[in-house]
Amino acid sequence: MNYSQMSKDELLAEKTALEAKYNDYKAQGLSLNMARGKPGAEQLAISKPMLDVVNSATNCTVDGIDCLNYGTLDGIPSVKKMFADVLGVTPDEVFVGGNSSLNLMFDTITCFMTTGVPGGTPWGKQGNIKFLCPVPGYDRHFGITEYYGIEMITVPMTSTGPDMDVVEKLVSEDASIKGIWCVPKYSNPTGVTFSDETVRRFAALKPAAPDFRIMWDNAYVIHDVTDNPDNLLSLMDECKKNGTQDMPIMFTSTSKITFPGAGVSAFACSENNMKHLKKRYNFQTIGFDKINMLRHALYLKDSKGLVDYMQKHKAMLAPKFACVLKYLDSEVKDTGTAKWENPNGGYFVSVDVMDGTAKEVVRLCKEAGVVLTGAGATFPYGKDPKDSNIRIAPSFPCVEELEKAMQIFCVCVRLAAVNKLLA
Amino acid sequence: MNYSQMSKDELLAEKTALEAKYNDYKAQGLSLNMARGKPGAEQLAISKPMLDVVNSATNCTVDGIDCLNYGTLDGIPSVKKMFADVLGVTPDEVFVGGNSSLNLMFDTITCFMTTGVPGGTPWGKQGNIKFLCPVPGYDRHFGITEYYGIEMITVPMTSTGPDMDVVEKLVSEDASIKGIWCVPKYSNPTGVTFSDETVRRFAALKPAAPDFRIMWDNAYVIHDVTDNPDNLLSLMDECKKNGTQDMPIMFTSTSKITFPGAGVSAFACSENNMKHLKKRYNFQTIGFDKINMLRHALYLKDSKGLVDYMQKHKAMLAPKFACVLKYLDSEVKDTGTAKWENPNGGYFVSVDVMDGTAKEVVRLCKEAGVVLTGAGATFPYGKDPKDSNIRIAPSFPCVEELEKAMQIFCVCVRLAAVNKLLA
Repeated sequence: MNYSQMSKDELLAEKTALEAKYNDYKAQGLSLNMARGKPGAEQLAISKPMLDVVNSATNCTVDGIDCLNYGTLDGIPSVKKMFADVLGVTPDEVFVGGNSSLNLMFDTITCFMTTGVPGGTPWGKQGNIKFLCPVPGYDRHFGITEYYGIEMITVPMTSTGPDMDVVEKLVSEDASIKGIWCVPKYSNPTGVTFSDETVRRFAALKPAAPDFRIMWDNAYVIHDVTDNPDNLLSLMDECKKNGTQDMPIMFTSTSKITFPGAGVSAFACSENNMKHLKKRYNFQTIGFDKINMLRHALYLKDSKGLVDYMQKHKAMLAPKFACVLKYLDSEVKDTGTAKWENPNGGYFVSVDVMDGTAKEVVRLCKEAGVVLTGAGATFPYGKDPKDSNIRIAPSFPCVEELEKAMQIFCVCVRLAAVNKLLA
Repeated sequence: MNYSQMSKDELLAEKTALEAKYNDYKAQGLSLNMARGKPGAEQLAISKPMLDVVNSATNCTVDGIDCLNYGTLDGIPSVKKMFADVLGVTPDEVFVGGNSSLNLMFDTITCFMTTGVPGGTPWGKQGNIKFLCPVPGYDRHFGITEYYGIEMITVPMTSTGPDMDVVEKLVSEDASIKGIWCVPKYSNPTGVTFSDETVRRFAALKPAAPDFRIMWDNAYVIHDVTDNPDNLLSLMDECKKNGTQDMPIMFTSTSKITFPGAGVSAFACSENNMKHLKKRYNFQTIGFDKINMLRHALYLKDSKGLVDYMQKHKAMLAPKFACVLKYLDSEVKDTGTAKWENPNGGYFVSVDVMDGTAKEVVRLCKEAGVVLTGAGATFPYGKDPKDSNIRIAPSFPCVEELEKAMQIFCVCVRLAAVNKLLA
């Protein structure tokens, strides 16, 4: 029954029942974690054979490049090709980095802060500048812009991506808005994939700032968890049609394909941006780890190999997502105390609990031994104005643990709502 | 015979003889390279067994850290300990990075440019700032400061390190001098190791700038090539005696121990600096490649293992250094046209040819098929005021090639000198 239709007595009875359940869970002294988007142990295990493909007998010279020695700033050709195909760009538009795409994003923002975009004034010398942040979003994106003192303006996420009416209006009116953070496919945390219309409207943006950039973090580009995978238009193709190919800087990695601790990352961008960023990287390093690139190339082969490989992850992640959604559907839906998306991929289920109860839900869960991402983490400065969004990361626990964690989560969502309604 | 004592006729005869030799070499259509400090193929080969030590059967969880997954910003404990012992600091003072110590240096300068040293004003907001650059020095160091528009002031290198009278005077008088680049052991390119007195004078510096930093690039910390290895005092120990432990930021890597393309780098610094730099890295990345750290830990064991391992490199490099010095001694010494150090380690032999002839020597060598580091590269902005310093990198060619390359080099040094004297 929907809580909003309950009488006070009914709510009091519900509270008593929920508290009894909650105390039962609490007494079990559990230790469960749904906080971070970390692959589970069985996901890591499937990539361990990759550790065998480069060994002492391997010829480490490929395409005339000795992967053991110095050199080759932008990565070995086979890995550039693989990422190009996945991102919908050409190999020349790809730069392969180290194990962290977050680091490439940090480097890119740092480059623009200190030396500007190609031909532009350094962002750091333009006074107060701003970034658009679709919310809920990824805390580590917001962390980078916060670190550099860039003012963050929230834009609501919809079921087709950021609210493009808001984005277009803000970007066209305010030249101090220098960029926007996006996770265009299976967005962190909502799981939404930007619609074709959204991608086309991004490509057609007419920013007041000539040095406006779209930080297009395609972290979950092939990370399906259902048999109905979403499709994302190539932003670069659309931009080329509009002559706006200097706007996007695209990122991805194999962190959630091979190993988070030792994957390979890449960015892709236009020739202008590439020349500018490569100039910086040429001062920054002689080149990233080519043996690890070779390891990935030999193990995954190409973009088709990469996509096929994701089936193994899907097989492990699908039951976990199903588990989360099963409990939300059976335990929460009828109470009307929360809303969520049913994502076809990615690493998260984003739940909007009753306004003003997210922190309380996280607190109740923690006391009962279930660690969640802190409430507010999905908003700039950690401040969720409605105190309602909670990001569930189902990948790390096993299904058995997840079952228990979700039972507790659902009780906490309802208990916090009842208490709020009774207050 | 010393060229300065030759008559014009003698010089003309010498010129004719040298040109004949030079044209002989040129006619051979050689392609030899003494340009970059790259390990040779046989040096890379000795580390290939490292590629076997982490495989699909390896337990990748060490010290409670799953090297396959996210986490552990500052590196795994065993590698921190190894670098700490080598650098003469404590493990808490070490941060382990990716495959490039140059990248760590770039990050550090970038951090100080954008956010200052701990408690300081960003270097980038202090107007014109300066860096001291002992010369000849490492071009990639100078590249970083040039990239950020930091004015570079040269300081002469002596046989005991930078001229400390000059360093002390400049640093104590000019608060816009924010730092100095140093390669304290087997300096790039002179091969000089800083004397105990030099290290103590560094530790006792009283800079006018409260945010002065010593960029201590200990790239060749255990890279001996003779049986008389140099010893370098621990700068951190000396700084602690002076209460100046916030001055140095120390760097090293295994690029020239295991693989340049896939080694492990580290920096070390005081608690204050570490807290400040870690704060930045915490926004920059979730952590560097822990599997590659584990690979190094399992293969090299500890700092003793590391030092023992260097014997293998010494066995391959010693004949190359001997070859370079043999030809300089037999072909150039008597002519008085060049000076050089006899290094006990490192990767280079620095040769000061006759003033005003370095560019010509490099050009002549190139025409005869021998590529050298560009003349001037060892000076800020690529400008050697005397046009005299040439950096020879003997590691990459095999000894046979090196013999030929050095014969040609010596002829070019003498021919350029004769032409200069006759001009």
